[in-house]
Amino acid sequence: MARTLKVAAAQLGPVHLNSKREETLARMITLLQQAAEFGAQLVLFPECALTTFFPRHLIKTQEELDTYFEHNDDLLDSPNTKPLFDEAKKLDVDISIGFAERTKEGTGYNTSIYYSVKKNEVIAKYRKVHLPGTKEPFENPDAVNQLEKRYFEIGNLGFKAFRVPDIIPGVLKKGDESKAERNGLGDPIMGMLICNDRRWPEGWRCYGLQGAEVVLCGYNTAGFAPDLWGTQKPMTPQQAEDDAVFHHKLVMQSNSYMNSCFSISAAKAGLEDGKYDLIGGSCITSPEGHVIAEAKGKDDEIVFAEIDLNECRQGMEKTFDFARHRRTEAYGLIVERAGVVEPELL
Amino acid sequence: MARTLKVAAAQLGPVHLNSKREETLARMITLLQQAAEFGAQLVLFPECALTTFFPRHLIKTQEELDTYFEHNDDLLDSPNTKPLFDEAKKLDVDISIGFAERTKEGTGYNTSIYYSVKKNEVIAKYRKVHLPGTKEPFENPDAVNQLEKRYFEIGNLGFKAFRVPDIIPGVLKKGDESKAERNGLGDPIMGMLICNDRRWPEGWRCYGLQGAEVVLCGYNTAGFAPDLWGTQKPMTPQQAEDDAVFHHKLVMQSNSYMNSCFSISAAKAGLEDGKYDLIGGSCITSPEGHVIAEAKGKDDEIVFAEIDLNECRQGMEKTFDFARHRRTEAYGLIVERAGVVEPELL
Repeated sequence: MARTLKVAAAQLGPVHLNSKREETLARMITLLQQAAEFGAQLVLFPECALTTFFPRHLIKTQEELDTYFEHNDDLLDSPNTKPLFDEAKKLDVDISIGFAERTKEGTGYNTSIYYSVKKNEVIAKYRKVHLPGTKEPFENPDAVNQLEKRYFEIGNLGFKAFRVPDIIPGVLKKGDESKAERNGLGDPIMGMLICNDRRWPEGWRCYGLQGAEVVLCGYNTAGFAPDLWGTQKPMTPQQAEDDAVFHHKLVMQSNSYMNSCFSISAAKAGLEDGKYDLIGGSCITSPEGHVIAEAKGKDDEIVFAEIDLNECRQGMEKTFDFARHRRTEAYGLIVERAGVVEPELL
Repeated sequence: MARTLKVAAAQLGPVHLNSKREETLARMITLLQQAAEFGAQLVLFPECALTTFFPRHLIKTQEELDTYFEHNDDLLDSPNTKPLFDEAKKLDVDISIGFAERTKEGTGYNTSIYYSVKKNEVIAKYRKVHLPGTKEPFENPDAVNQLEKRYFEIGNLGFKAFRVPDIIPGVLKKGDESKAERNGLGDPIMGMLICNDRRWPEGWRCYGLQGAEVVLCGYNTAGFAPDLWGTQKPMTPQQAEDDAVFHHKLVMQSNSYMNSCFSISAAKAGLEDGKYDLIGGSCITSPEGHVIAEAKGKDDEIVFAEIDLNECRQGMEKTFDFARHRRTEAYGLIVERAGVVEPELL
């Protein structure tokens, strides 16, 4: 039996420092409606979807900083986000969305959640593990800051895959089938990553080891990276942006392939605050590593695909049959050390 | 200071069951000479370069099986391989080569070694960790066997990076420079993978964690994979081969990027034994994940590039500065379990 799912990435064009929250929310609701017209059962919104990507700014007051964070753990109930979830209920669509989370204790996280419309609740939460950038702003006034390490703590929830209940009608449930037939069956297994996480194979593998069939990843990715060492070929801004899109797709495609899963990625794209250019490239990749749908531009746009989760089985049960082929005894370095220890200089 | 290295992949066309050892060796010597004409300082030969890729055959007698293995640990001294290393000495070229190794104790490994011409010795050995296929032959007489798990033991040397001494004149050595300037300097750091290993990000990461700047990977990869689950789109043999080349390049490119290293890959390619089609696609990739040189065909062919190892620094010291960004506490699953444990069916 095919296990078919209709999925969408809701790419957002720029959201500016002075964008009004209700206008951004209205754009997201429009995207949700467009996705529903395609028949989407799941819509992924970007990282920190509700505001400009504020970690590029050195924000001087706690009061201003607070305006970029959600202070209510229950997005379904918060006036900032309730209308989006109300619309999802009306349209019968699941949502995954990224936002800046402020806990009751005051800790900041770069967070995403998965809302199941059938359960009418948030069934999974992920906090970004691989925070890029620095705690302190750059001294060079022309440098673009990336202050995620300043505003967020490192995610403390690990990479926990989850089943999405009842999104595919008629799939086998526990007790319905023999153990031999279980693999690849049942409700879909998903995992969440956020932006920079997608460049780190460790997170993908943790999801792969839980049988994840779909990995969701929202992002805000700059189209320009300074050449720190003078070793790069000189690039025009367009070439630099093309290269950033290339890297984005490369890691989505290869990690999907190496973990036999689909992936959905959703950008916040375009020129934010009239100055900071973010790449587009929102896409859906197959377990064979192919891009099966992708954004055409850098504005608000739905990227849609109908996928059959059983396509994951070819990889999971042959080339990437982990139980038969992985050799954990050879992988110790991966958890024993964070950084590089080079062989001694000869 | 640039740390420039001229490197080559020596792709081999088919070697058949009835190919004569001395003829295959003569072809390899010709490739070595061609690479030296390009100015190559290092030439990579394929996995099991000296014979047909015998694990696709069910070999009935130990006597026949033995003909595919090297029984002398010292390739420089063995009549099967001595002429190749003599030529390397004459041409002043380093060699990395794959072969089937039979130890004195009788154990078989799928092995590759690195020969330093400056030291005139084998300075590193790697034994393949990710053996694909099965121990028992398939019952279906039309199936193509992949009996690596039958003929080889799992590699027991881990993923050990190594410095290649004196291959780049004038690089800084231990004691020459302050610690702050050491990163990325000194003799090149390399690591070896074999064929299927390249699809597993764990091996690459172990090398990345040792600061590897070049990863070498020889391979024999079938251009056709059966559709076990009937979930794949029907493919012509040419489409299947194109897809296999796509997967090969995808993992070489992405793992080079995610570990900020160059890679060199060398195929044994073409129609072996008149029946088994192997992909070409030997290539050299940059730390930014781009293919910078690749094979044009499926015959004996040199793929050459001049690379500057300092191009690894941009990635190693920014996006992929492991010490600043990796979170080993979140990666436990990677070493805790080999196979998938799915979330319980809901």
